[in-house]
Amino acid sequence: MKPGRFITLEGGEGVGKSTNLQFIRQCLAERDIPLLVTREPGGTPIAEKIRAILLERSDEALSEQAELLLVFAARAQHIRHVIEPALLRGEWVVCDRFTDATYAYQGAGRNMDLATIAWLERTVQGGLRPDLTFVLDAPVATGLQRAKRRGELDRFETEQLDFFERIRQSYLHRAAGDPARYKVIDAALPLPQVQARLLAELETLWAN
Amino acid sequence: MKPGRFITLEGGEGVGKSTNLQFIRQCLAERDIPLLVTREPGGTPIAEKIRAILLERSDEALSEQAELLLVFAARAQHIRHVIEPALLRGEWVVCDRFTDATYAYQGAGRNMDLATIAWLERTVQGGLRPDLTFVLDAPVATGLQRAKRRGELDRFETEQLDFFERIRQSYLHRAAGDPARYKVIDAALPLPQVQARLLAELETLWAN
Repeated sequence: MKPGRFITLEGGEGVGKSTNLQFIRQCLAERDIPLLVTREPGGTPIAEKIRAILLERSDEALSEQAELLLVFAARAQHIRHVIEPALLRGEWVVCDRFTDATYAYQGAGRNMDLATIAWLERTVQGGLRPDLTFVLDAPVATGLQRAKRRGELDRFETEQLDFFERIRQSYLHRAAGDPARYKVIDAALPLPQVQARLLAELETLWAN
Repeated sequence: MKPGRFITLEGGEGVGKSTNLQFIRQCLAERDIPLLVTREPGGTPIAEKIRAILLERSDEALSEQAELLLVFAARAQHIRHVIEPALLRGEWVVCDRFTDATYAYQGAGRNMDLATIAWLERTVQGGLRPDLTFVLDAPVATGLQRAKRRGELDRFETEQLDFFERIRQSYLHRAAGDPARYKVIDAALPLPQVQARLLAELETLWAN
């Protein structure tokens, strides 16, 4: 049995994650690759309950530490019950956001201590890291305009412009540090060009 | 302004925490001590939502790491929004369970790494520790019999006898390590004797 692969899809608001997730799903399905598509925060019934607490707009402000710990609580549940079992069965797991989003949103966005995030990453994930991470990158203003057209904004989407600028820079910075794993895709390009890049990277991963 | 005091009430199932919490509340109210009574996990609307996830019996097993991180997420929220503000206002805070319960239930009960709990305690609480911790202690069988009479059991109350025995020993062990802070009360004694002990300790704290 070939081992499963772990692919994550990252990026700020409105960069086209959903559309391209569907494209990746289709590419892998056409090659008869056993596939599990999931998302964070969430991915199990309990983790989705945690997601609801994270995204809900409420009169009570969610403290930054509580937010970070909820993210990793949902992740621990998701890894143990969904991601690890699927990889052990030889499936490819495609996840809409993972720990890079925590470094970007809670780390760079909220200025939380990166060493605290790294400690939680090691404790919750052990050695589990994505084999391939797509970073869909677009100017913040472009992405937010698209996100706003989708309808009511969640707790994160109501943040200010510089919050999203820090998130974008965090993704680019992390990608630059490990080009073998991270593939930055210019999401402002026409969709066929974006998807040609995605397909090429998937084929490389498939061949190896 | 006299500074607030932080009192926690600990113990296994069925040791009489609710009854004695009411007694403590009444003692302090009679002395016109400004008072906030709260509980963990919970104590804020968001933290109570986290509590519901922790206590709910579900088809999906909650992973041990997710449980531990949810406990500290709720605690971070509770400290920031309720406990610290009350102490700063000079109030006495009486909390039904706190971090000793995490060492007892998740540490001793579930055999989770104590160093991980200690790291989370330092990260979430900084220097915040209770001024006084009552440990209501009774033989496990006695307590469980009382808890069962109360009605349907939550996710923790359905555990086996040795789980609760480890919890009891954890409380006693931690109490023995810091007798200035921990007061172990024999909860199998008649209620008037239990409450005379509680009152004496409260008066000592009040005098200091």
